[in-house]
Amino acid sequence: MEQSELRTRLARAGQGHLLRFLPELSRAEQLALSEELRGMDFEELGRFFRRAMEGGGGAGQDKVDARMEPVPRQVLGSATRDRDQLHDWEQRGLHHISQSKVAVLLLAGGQGTRLGVSYPKGMYDVGLPSHKTLFQIQAERILKLQQLAEKEHGTKCVIPWYIMTSGRTMESTKEFFLKHKYFGLKKENMVFFQQGMLPAMGFDGKILLEEKSKVSMAPDGNGGLYRALGAHGIIEDMERRGIGSIHVYCVDNILVKVADPRFIGFCIQKGADCGAKVVEKTNPTEPVGVVCRVDGVYQVVEYSEISLATAQKRSPDGRLLFNAGNIANHYFTVAFLRDVVNTYEPQLQHHVAQKKIPHMDVASGRLLEPDKPNGIKMEKFVFDIFQFAKKFVVYEVLREDEFSPLKNADSQNGKDNPTTARHALMSLHHCWVLNAGGHFVDENGTRIPAIPRFTNGRPDAIRADVNDNLKDANDLPIQCEISPLVSYGGEGLEQYVKNRVFRAPLIIDENGVHELVKNGV
Amino acid sequence: MEQSELRTRLARAGQGHLLRFLPELSRAEQLALSEELRGMDFEELGRFFRRAMEGGGGAGQDKVDARMEPVPRQVLGSATRDRDQLHDWEQRGLHHISQSKVAVLLLAGGQGTRLGVSYPKGMYDVGLPSHKTLFQIQAERILKLQQLAEKEHGTKCVIPWYIMTSGRTMESTKEFFLKHKYFGLKKENMVFFQQGMLPAMGFDGKILLEEKSKVSMAPDGNGGLYRALGAHGIIEDMERRGIGSIHVYCVDNILVKVADPRFIGFCIQKGADCGAKVVEKTNPTEPVGVVCRVDGVYQVVEYSEISLATAQKRSPDGRLLFNAGNIANHYFTVAFLRDVVNTYEPQLQHHVAQKKIPHMDVASGRLLEPDKPNGIKMEKFVFDIFQFAKKFVVYEVLREDEFSPLKNADSQNGKDNPTTARHALMSLHHCWVLNAGGHFVDENGTRIPAIPRFTNGRPDAIRADVNDNLKDANDLPIQCEISPLVSYGGEGLEQYVKNRVFRAPLIIDENGVHELVKNGV
Repeated sequence: MEQSELRTRLARAGQGHLLRFLPELSRAEQLALSEELRGMDFEELGRFFRRAMEGGGGAGQDKVDARMEPVPRQVLGSATRDRDQLHDWEQRGLHHISQSKVAVLLLAGGQGTRLGVSYPKGMYDVGLPSHKTLFQIQAERILKLQQLAEKEHGTKCVIPWYIMTSGRTMESTKEFFLKHKYFGLKKENMVFFQQGMLPAMGFDGKILLEEKSKVSMAPDGNGGLYRALGAHGIIEDMERRGIGSIHVYCVDNILVKVADPRFIGFCIQKGADCGAKVVEKTNPTEPVGVVCRVDGVYQVVEYSEISLATAQKRSPDGRLLFNAGNIANHYFTVAFLRDVVNTYEPQLQHHVAQKKIPHMDVASGRLLEPDKPNGIKMEKFVFDIFQFAKKFVVYEVLREDEFSPLKNADSQNGKDNPTTARHALMSLHHCWVLNAGGHFVDENGTRIPAIPRFTNGRPDAIRADVNDNLKDANDLPIQCEISPLVSYGGEGLEQYVKNRVFRAPLIIDENGVHELVKNGV
Repeated sequence: MEQSELRTRLARAGQGHLLRFLPELSRAEQLALSEELRGMDFEELGRFFRRAMEGGGGAGQDKVDARMEPVPRQVLGSATRDRDQLHDWEQRGLHHISQSKVAVLLLAGGQGTRLGVSYPKGMYDVGLPSHKTLFQIQAERILKLQQLAEKEHGTKCVIPWYIMTSGRTMESTKEFFLKHKYFGLKKENMVFFQQGMLPAMGFDGKILLEEKSKVSMAPDGNGGLYRALGAHGIIEDMERRGIGSIHVYCVDNILVKVADPRFIGFCIQKGADCGAKVVEKTNPTEPVGVVCRVDGVYQVVEYSEISLATAQKRSPDGRLLFNAGNIANHYFTVAFLRDVVNTYEPQLQHHVAQKKIPHMDVASGRLLEPDKPNGIKMEKFVFDIFQFAKKFVVYEVLREDEFSPLKNADSQNGKDNPTTARHALMSLHHCWVLNAGGHFVDENGTRIPAIPRFTNGRPDAIRADVNDNLKDANDLPIQCEISPLVSYGGEGLEQYVKNRVFRAPLIIDENGVHELVKNGV
């Protein structure tokens, strides 16, 4: 009876082919497939599909260029251009944190596929001297920030941590945190929830089968956040805890300043309900989306949507006109998020990603591996809701201080990989030590210059000996790692390093200062 | 008799140890060593050594920071901030070129040691679709620029090419050009000359032996240029040809705009006798020297000479205060060069590079391979003479348009290597095609966006299939190469590409437009 009802629903929705292989399946497979299909709202999926296909495509594309305007200076805060205000913003942010009004929300639905691993990216160890994972680094930054706020204001406080996983990463993520005792955080202040999935479809709107007994499913984009917030009652949880502001960020940025008090404080001072942290885009062809206004409304325009001429436009000061590079670091008030979940998000259409989707051919019963895109996956983006903000602001920070994403596996001349992430963090920490009055010396006791690498800008007219040269070519940043438990953003290091001399590798952690001498000795 | 005279000279100079192994040598080796030593001016070398050792060292180092001032706006020309003047500068430069008043001078003394090859860097093929070498690319840019100037002004003109080699690169460089018929240039307009060498010394000023019969010699730095200009009568050659302006550059920059008419025109319009082309330094710890004033005098301060605090200083506009990154592209008038050769250069002391120098131990007769620096090599830098300029100017250009040096071999996450050089050139040429109205499509005929790579700025919440992901991770710039014989700097391409659609790899050369279809078909 139930089976025939499902059959009718599918037929009415034009998805009858999904049961095409039912007779060939085992009893268990039949049950699993029916169960999966019964959970789907085919009317809604059909609506999503039609709206997504109407909205996307090249028609509007040429016009975006003409409708774009840069972020005006008055809504922009800058870590380099507003230095006199940084202290004030930081104090405001710390004050809110000390009142337990700030939470962080981590987008961790992605698997490390491009990175070449089958587990959640947050569990990845990029090879720091401490071998900490991204999750641990972020957890320790939260811990330290709680302490800093408590110290400043003399009150105990909590920064709750919401972690959005996907179907593929939920169990392993939770197990990982349990196994590591939440890295010192309290379990009750961590909330795991799962983003939704959507089936892949052919260009005709037919849902594709991955196997005879299994629908081809993919997470619904990082903008699936808002639907998931609603589905799992997360907004209510935030309100219950008295949270006013949320910092949303992505798991893959090893330098992320979780709940950055300056960013929070800036947004609060401006009375913003929505804010984006950005880094300056300096090369027109850098593949990064830019925050801007289109028809007077804020949004992120993806790099693939604009012409080169637009990307190359410059202000009179020589900077790129569209230079607010999006780094997936956002500020929201909980009130705004509530409106988004209840009212705005359902109005958003999905973006269409044309993909080559391997699938069961319904006619032949054979697995097809297309060499051209044959269907779509539907996704929303976390920044799709900027347009609904009543007061939107942008906060510009330095790339070398705050942004180094982990996307790819190590490879020849690669970008955004474990090596670049590790180097970015150690270079930053090396700067922290120097700025706090410490110094490094090499194996001969000679002081290493602040900028130690030996490349560029000067021809090689002097022939150093071959060994020197090879060493130069492979020179690494100074191996230097400072635990977030010791310093959140470079503060408080004088007591450890001032007027001291170190040999790398150096670790400074909650147990003190360690020089890790290589190869015994 | 001659032998005893040499012995006396050596003894007087404290270098008697150089003949220590003479009795062990063959007759031929004895003659060779004596010959080599007889050519050396030990008094002068001793003077060089003493002055270099006095001048160098850390004493002055801490003070440089306090004495540095940035380049003032009024001596700065900028490709991004002075766009309204670029046409005028270009016209001025082309006019001078058309009168055969401009020459180029290539610093090509370096071997490709760090690059992992034993021949001159200019002979390196970075793997472009055309497989052109750096020398060929530069030669063709000179040819094209002569044509552009001739076309603009209706007069035949010549841009003489001076090439400074070193003892190690002279013969192979000349042979290479001969073999390739000077890439279409006239032999009589090419002048090869050789920079000098200096012996390596211990910290005590004793010259080191590389073998029992051979002094350890190294080129005298790219600033050896000035002495070599004098030694080989190059200034007279320039004057005889009626040259007024020289563009000096280094062989390793694949994007170098040889005799760049805008740069030349800017320097001439400003009445400068000396100028430096720079790119903006945007990261404080980038290892690049910066052009600035020290005690009111222009010079390049090397990145290793300044503190991090100085490197991190910013102007109110957010840019680094010291951001004029030196890229070894200089302008000189011949009159200034003459004064440098005759008057100023001899006043300059050498810089000291402490090195680990393998050498014959005079006591034991064994080859020592030190694991600490045991001696020095002395060098001058091409920019050491900025301080003598009467009117010094700086011209800022975009890195992605003009600077991608070839320093190292390809390696994991390497910089400044064949891959980065190749990509920089092809990315630039891709931009040229787009800006001239052409487009690229992929294998399915879909138009490729202007910024084609798929990384960064957005989390991976959507799981594309594995094949897609791997492809994304390895995505290269569009394979696109435009011969300098067709376009010097992006001009004149409309006739080839406007409103046309291409599939990469694409080559546009003097024979037309070629799409190189891969794998047959």
